[in-house]
Amino acid sequence: MTPDLLSPNQHTILETAVHPRNHLAFLSQAEIDRLIDRNADGLYPLIRSCALAILNSGVNTDDSVGLFAKHQDFDLTFARHPRGLRITLHHAPKQAFVDGVLMETIHDMLFAMLRDLLLIRDLVTVRPDQPGIAATDLVFQVLRNAKVLDAERELNTIVCWGGHAINKVEYDYSVRVGEALGLRRFDICTGCGPGAMKGPMRGAAHGHRRQSWRHGRFIGITEPGIIAAEPPNGVVGDLVIMPDIEKRLEAFVRIAHGLIIFPGGVGTFEEILYLMAILNAPHNHEDPLPVVLTGPVESTDTLHAFHTFLVETLGSKATGRLELIIDDPGAVAGRMVEGREAIRRHRRQAEDAYFFNWTLAIEDHLKIPFTPSHEAMASLNLHRDQPATDLAQNLRALFSGIVSGNVKPAIQAAIQRNGPFIIRGDPTLMHAVDRLLARLVAERRMKMQGGYTPCYRIQTE
Amino acid sequence: MTPDLLSPNQHTILETAVHPRNHLAFLSQAEIDRLIDRNADGLYPLIRSCALAILNSGVNTDDSVGLFAKHQDFDLTFARHPRGLRITLHHAPKQAFVDGVLMETIHDMLFAMLRDLLLIRDLVTVRPDQPGIAATDLVFQVLRNAKVLDAERELNTIVCWGGHAINKVEYDYSVRVGEALGLRRFDICTGCGPGAMKGPMRGAAHGHRRQSWRHGRFIGITEPGIIAAEPPNGVVGDLVIMPDIEKRLEAFVRIAHGLIIFPGGVGTFEEILYLMAILNAPHNHEDPLPVVLTGPVESTDTLHAFHTFLVETLGSKATGRLELIIDDPGAVAGRMVEGREAIRRHRRQAEDAYFFNWTLAIEDHLKIPFTPSHEAMASLNLHRDQPATDLAQNLRALFSGIVSGNVKPAIQAAIQRNGPFIIRGDPTLMHAVDRLLARLVAERRMKMQGGYTPCYRIQTE
Amino acid sequence: MTPDLLSPNQHTILETAVHPRNHLAFLSQAEIDRLIDRNADGLYPLIRSCALAILNSGVNTDDSVGLFAKHQDFDLTFARHPRGLRITLHHAPKQAFVDGVLMETIHDMLFAMLRDLLLIRDLVTVRPDQPGIAATDLVFQVLRNAKVLDAERELNTIVCWGGHAINKVEYDYSVRVGEALGLRRFDICTGCGPGAMKGPMRGAAHGHRRQSWRHGRFIGITEPGIIAAEPPNGVVGDLVIMPDIEKRLEAFVRIAHGLIIFPGGVGTFEEILYLMAILNAPHNHEDPLPVVLTGPVESTDTLHAFHTFLVETLGSKATGRLELIIDDPGAVAGRMVEGREAIRRHRRQAEDAYFFNWTLAIEDHLKIPFTPSHEAMASLNLHRDQPATDLAQNLRALFSGIVSGNVKPAIQAAIQRNGPFIIRGDPTLMHAVDRLLARLVAERRMKMQGGYTPCYRIQTE
Amino acid sequence: MTPDLLSPNQHTILETAVHPRNHLAFLSQAEIDRLIDRNADGLYPLIRSCALAILNSGVNTDDSVGLFAKHQDFDLTFARHPRGLRITLHHAPKQAFVDGVLMETIHDMLFAMLRDLLLIRDLVTVRPDQPGIAATDLVFQVLRNAKVLDAERELNTIVCWGGHAINKVEYDYSVRVGEALGLRRFDICTGCGPGAMKGPMRGAAHGHRRQSWRHGRFIGITEPGIIAAEPPNGVVGDLVIMPDIEKRLEAFVRIAHGLIIFPGGVGTFEEILYLMAILNAPHNHEDPLPVVLTGPVESTDTLHAFHTFLVETLGSKATGRLELIIDDPGAVAGRMVEGREAIRRHRRQAEDAYFFNWTLAIEDHLKIPFTPSHEAMASLNLHRDQPATDLAQNLRALFSGIVSGNVKPAIQAAIQRNGPFIIRGDPTLMHAVDRLLARLVAERRMKMQGGYTPCYRIQTE
Repeated sequence: MTPDLLSPNQHTILETAVHPRNHLAFLSQAEIDRLIDRNADGLYPLIRSCALAILNSGVNTDDSVGLFAKHQDFDLTFARHPRGLRITLHHAPKQAFVDGVLMETIHDMLFAMLRDLLLIRDLVTVRPDQPGIAATDLVFQVLRNAKVLDAERELNTIVCWGGHAINKVEYDYSVRVGEALGLRRFDICTGCGPGAMKGPMRGAAHGHRRQSWRHGRFIGITEPGIIAAEPPNGVVGDLVIMPDIEKRLEAFVRIAHGLIIFPGGVGTFEEILYLMAILNAPHNHEDPLPVVLTGPVESTDTLHAFHTFLVETLGSKATGRLELIIDDPGAVAGRMVEGREAIRRHRRQAEDAYFFNWTLAIEDHLKIPFTPSHEAMASLNLHRDQPATDLAQNLRALFSGIVSGNVKPAIQAAIQRNGPFIIRGDPTLMHAVDRLLARLVAERRMKMQGGYTPCYRIQTE
Repeated sequence: MTPDLLSPNQHTILETAVHPRNHLAFLSQAEIDRLIDRNADGLYPLIRSCALAILNSGVNTDDSVGLFAKHQDFDLTFARHPRGLRITLHHAPKQAFVDGVLMETIHDMLFAMLRDLLLIRDLVTVRPDQPGIAATDLVFQVLRNAKVLDAERELNTIVCWGGHAINKVEYDYSVRVGEALGLRRFDICTGCGPGAMKGPMRGAAHGHRRQSWRHGRFIGITEPGIIAAEPPNGVVGDLVIMPDIEKRLEAFVRIAHGLIIFPGGVGTFEEILYLMAILNAPHNHEDPLPVVLTGPVESTDTLHAFHTFLVETLGSKATGRLELIIDDPGAVAGRMVEGREAIRRHRRQAEDAYFFNWTLAIEDHLKIPFTPSHEAMASLNLHRDQPATDLAQNLRALFSGIVSGNVKPAIQAAIQRNGPFIIRGDPTLMHAVDRLLARLVAERRMKMQGGYTPCYRIQTE
Repeated sequence: MTPDLLSPNQHTILETAVHPRNHLAFLSQAEIDRLIDRNADGLYPLIRSCALAILNSGVNTDDSVGLFAKHQDFDLTFARHPRGLRITLHHAPKQAFVDGVLMETIHDMLFAMLRDLLLIRDLVTVRPDQPGIAATDLVFQVLRNAKVLDAERELNTIVCWGGHAINKVEYDYSVRVGEALGLRRFDICTGCGPGAMKGPMRGAAHGHRRQSWRHGRFIGITEPGIIAAEPPNGVVGDLVIMPDIEKRLEAFVRIAHGLIIFPGGVGTFEEILYLMAILNAPHNHEDPLPVVLTGPVESTDTLHAFHTFLVETLGSKATGRLELIIDDPGAVAGRMVEGREAIRRHRRQAEDAYFFNWTLAIEDHLKIPFTPSHEAMASLNLHRDQPATDLAQNLRALFSGIVSGNVKPAIQAAIQRNGPFIIRGDPTLMHAVDRLLARLVAERRMKMQGGYTPCYRIQTE
Repeated sequence: MTPDLLSPNQHTILETAVHPRNHLAFLSQAEIDRLIDRNADGLYPLIRSCALAILNSGVNTDDSVGLFAKHQDFDLTFARHPRGLRITLHHAPKQAFVDGVLMETIHDMLFAMLRDLLLIRDLVTVRPDQPGIAATDLVFQVLRNAKVLDAERELNTIVCWGGHAINKVEYDYSVRVGEALGLRRFDICTGCGPGAMKGPMRGAAHGHRRQSWRHGRFIGITEPGIIAAEPPNGVVGDLVIMPDIEKRLEAFVRIAHGLIIFPGGVGTFEEILYLMAILNAPHNHEDPLPVVLTGPVESTDTLHAFHTFLVETLGSKATGRLELIIDDPGAVAGRMVEGREAIRRHRRQAEDAYFFNWTLAIEDHLKIPFTPSHEAMASLNLHRDQPATDLAQNLRALFSGIVSGNVKPAIQAAIQRNGPFIIRGDPTLMHAVDRLLARLVAERRMKMQGGYTPCYRIQTE
């Protein structure tokens, strides 16, 4: 690590060199040659944008456009060095440095990102239309290579989901839940960004410190398209980059020994429906993963609305696995402690690994991204005469399409051309969807400029 | 550590046993016998009240009366055990436990407290009227025994002073200063309580984590009379109990490699005057300890008022050592980095230890508690025709007397009998004192019920 | 690790289960499936024989035939387990266990062996006739995967060569050299077996202990055909299995920061000639690797004979790199300290890695095994009118052929059919060869039953 | 640590400075002042001779006179330093250094010695004629201060006794016993010197390495009068210096969780009788300490002779606690494993510490040195009509007197003046003594020049 040269731009460091320590500390000549040649495999633009997001770690933003605009002259180059590899950063954001030296966690994340992107490049490709076990294997290999799997501290990983833009009261509550988990020496795994992805980590870090527990882990799992909009928060210790959103979701459920869901927006709701589709598959009925939906007393209405929607659509039996706990961090943590013992028994009996839930069945439908179009949306089966697991999958696709219709320029253009998506289905289902989205809009949990014009029209039958 | 029995009182644990791990792990039979016999040396009441304060660590309170009233049935007993010593806690506050097991840091502090109280009991007594080098030696021995001195990480200890009841903006600023220090791997030492004693520790803990720095220390130095009113905050890692206030102050200045003062009340001001008396002693002119007075931009007026008072009373030359930095955590931390190098050079030249400032002269006046009375107050020399070091000492005694007149029942009674303290001195000095106290009252930085009636009357000459 | 069941055969343990801890702690389902299916890729016989050799670690033997005969009922099976993989050993040699539990180092070597054999299977095949850079890359990958490369402790690896059957005086001397190296915190790398491969490790372990040095490494590099005849000695800490003899030799010279040669037989001499061929290649003239030939004063004649042979055949200039130090462990270690600094400068200048000598050129001739036959032996160019590097290569092939003629049944049969190998070359070279072999026979440094009948006839021209 | 200046005397280092790291890293000014003033408390000559012995650690010698004669110009001086204390060594033996820097273990032992001598000086004096519990307390405090007591690894300490001049076969056997203990992760504690004090340590170090066990301890307990004749062997890791021989013996039996006795001379026999006196005291009948007398098959006669003497004098019941195991290291180690469990139960029941046997009663007779004179020897009660514990004490005094008569100049002069000691007692006891001593003489296990002239005459009654 060499001291910095001052840049004319006072917000960046003109040039600085960094060297790998753990990941990539030992590359062969051929491997270095491939890295030095920027054009070799089209990886460079991805590396650059992920690097820029990581160098902004700890900065609260979800404006990736603004982030990139501000740092157009940022660049990174690779070279050989007696200690292996040298990366030179040009015009890197100053906030990543202390007295001209890169912060340790940012340094580590930089090389963790390279590690994952290079591994993904080198692994045999998964067939996009039939991902099957190969996709699960890839998820496993990325996690193993990141040294996130740990046989000694097994059954310790609590995955937390929830919005990146929750309010102050909800954030403070997520910190308290994190502290209750940290006092019980749990590790936290989240999607890496701010809000409900950060609060539990901060709290757990404090809980670990009160227990003099130095082995706590804070795992952030992201993917290239998300990281720029949600740079790693300042608590993430282990950063893992999955190739796409579906593998990121699969990673969450396979390493979780407990799952806690805080309030959030449409994105969080998609995740819940993804989970419902899995838990209701007949093969997974025995799986004892504890799942808790929780928030502060001030969010009671929202939590009830979430819960009601699920009961109304999937039925109370299908949602039995989702426990609702309001404003009680100790009870949430206690539920995770109980659940862990059930998991231990179940895995032992199934001869499944403690550190990766191989037994859980995830259908190919859930491993393949849903591509929204007027046709696809219109042909979604949104009736009650199907198993809960299928209905949950279809509802997840519905929400996914609505998110795209709200934010993705290409979809928005199609809607302007052809009118809103027409959605057909059981009227009671349709009204439940309508009510939920209205609430998310009213509570400003959906990304929007000005008033919200729905991108869909419900056609009841 | 045995699991707990539920107490009828739901806020306490009926009975639980704890064992020492580091401190006191190895006691001889004679040492254990002395502990078991509660009446042996009158130590038991002190142990009990300190233990109760520690078991409330992390709870924000400065109401020691309330604390003790709430836990009248709390008790602790000692017994022999194959692994050395066993302490049984009866009706201990539930908040100190997680799932019935004492938190690690609270466990450690409990035995740290015993370690210090037993050591102090066994060390040869310092003559109260002529403390001299023996007092310094005792301070050193308590710190050494607590393993707070560290030759490897020397020159890393930043002492932070300031009020326990600062406002939210000032607290958040102290967290930011702490983070800037933590990013540079400094350790933090404070008086152990809330407010400006906690903020820098929290911030530094976050800074250390961002640097993956696992060796950070958070030293809290207190004394038996203070700890009950200011239980250790939840970040303190190393707790040290000095026998009295003067040795606590001496410990701060001898282990500091940098000293940062945040806004505070009369107590903080006493500390500043104590420091001014030391730094202005001719013997100490060469000592390069960096001293910074700092706060957020919102506290600019208060900081200027503090600074102005010192310049008006002691003169600008005498206050030259006190640097004022407003709202710039990076500059504060940078100043500590610079100062450290100067200290290294100075200690090497003086053949003084890196981990304890033996060279600094502290006069017996400053090692002896000031006992306020009408006579003592009336005879304080508060004129300008004396060296700055002496004037600082006398002003410190003045403030000490005023604090006692405000809060100590015995002194308050004497004032009711004999009228307010009469203070004589140079009118310009007296007016400076008056103005400063008026500001502290106005900003509610002094402890008081209702309006403030001064306990003193200035008699200008 | 489960306790053992007593076997009817008192020298073995009937059945015991072991689990991986570091290597192979995390296998995917597909990887475990492939291991469980013994017939999948023909790897099982190799795994079994290596496992048996490792379970005899610490036993002094070079009789692999006897070893296998004694343990015909030894077997190992693989199964899935919540912590990953379980290996069950059947009829394992009792000497590997303490109170029914496998010794830690043997446990580790067992999984190191699996790690390497599985990696070698999965790596892309090197073309046998044009190994080139791909062979070097494979050597690098096996070492990296074994975590033998270390950027922090770089420039510390001393490779020791020499006979496995040296006499007691020579062994004791190798221990003393090892102690001198250990006192200077050097790591030792050898071929893993007894004699000169063990002595330096034992000595260095003692030296490390006297320096309270807990980070010392004892690397043994072997290959599947050798390990059974030379089970790892009891000091080896890191076991690495290369796919063949040539890659093992390449591994030695690429990770060495110093090379020490003790007395030995024809095998040691082959190694010396391999090294001479490399060091005399023009591309390698600048490489500063220190190379010392050393032994106790009692072995002076042998050492001089070795040296004389090299000077007579390759010339004094070509052997200038080989330093002869007799009976002075301190001087040998001192030479390694000096050489290390030269290497550091050279690598920095060449931008080559500290932990792997990429710059050293090794020709394909040296990477391809020499297959002896009457034709091949007859056509060896053994004249002086060629560069030293080529002559060294040809002499190495000559010695390799003689070794095979001495011990390999197939070659011995061919010789019985067709008469001894006919060797043609410069008479002075031929006589030097003759003299050297006579000495090795006289000193019983060659493996033989009864008197020695040469398998070759020199035909001078 | 500064590099050395070459001394004109090639066997010593002219001048070198060392600094404390653990022990004595933090001394107060008063403590340093007292050390710098060499004449303060007459400690300097003791420090110098112990330092010289330690600097010869690893050298095999029992000739303290020769050692001191060779190093008359050796000297050490103390000074203040920013890191605490600096010791300058003048003309220190070169063998303690590697490339001009003191070996780590020797460095540590140097400061361990200072630590113990300073502590002993500062502890309250034990009354020489009534040592009582105060002596035990002092033993405890020295061990605690040396950090030799360990609550985590308790019940692991095997004490080995035996001669410093045993033959090669016996030494090799003691190494094998040590390896069997080390493979079971036992720590070894001995008297610190060569022979049976070194062999078990070497073996255990190898056993620990095979188990990848990095926490093994090798504790050497000595006293100022012995260390010069028996410098610490090269394996000792923790050196402890007790104030006198009796406290050294007490330390051995109080920290032992198992005791193994190898062959030795009169000194070893004194130790056995000391142990017999303790084990036969009625108060100690329940104590389950395992005690094994062992040696190689070649020493069978000697071991039987030892055992026979004890049975003939003390009776078979009194010697029942001493188990004889011939040539079976595994059985010896197995016996220690068993005994440990008995100790664990016993200590738990007695509420005694795992790491120090407080319960064991040791009478004042055994804590007070026996001063031999013609009167004292003549009045020893050597009859059978007394409890075994008393007879063992008296026999121990008898052997102690004989050792003094053999080697101490003052006693030898008294014998020349007044004739040999007259010993009176039961004839069968006297003949047993005679036979045993004759064997020790014949096997050259007693220190003597030329033939042996007994210093005593038996007067049977």
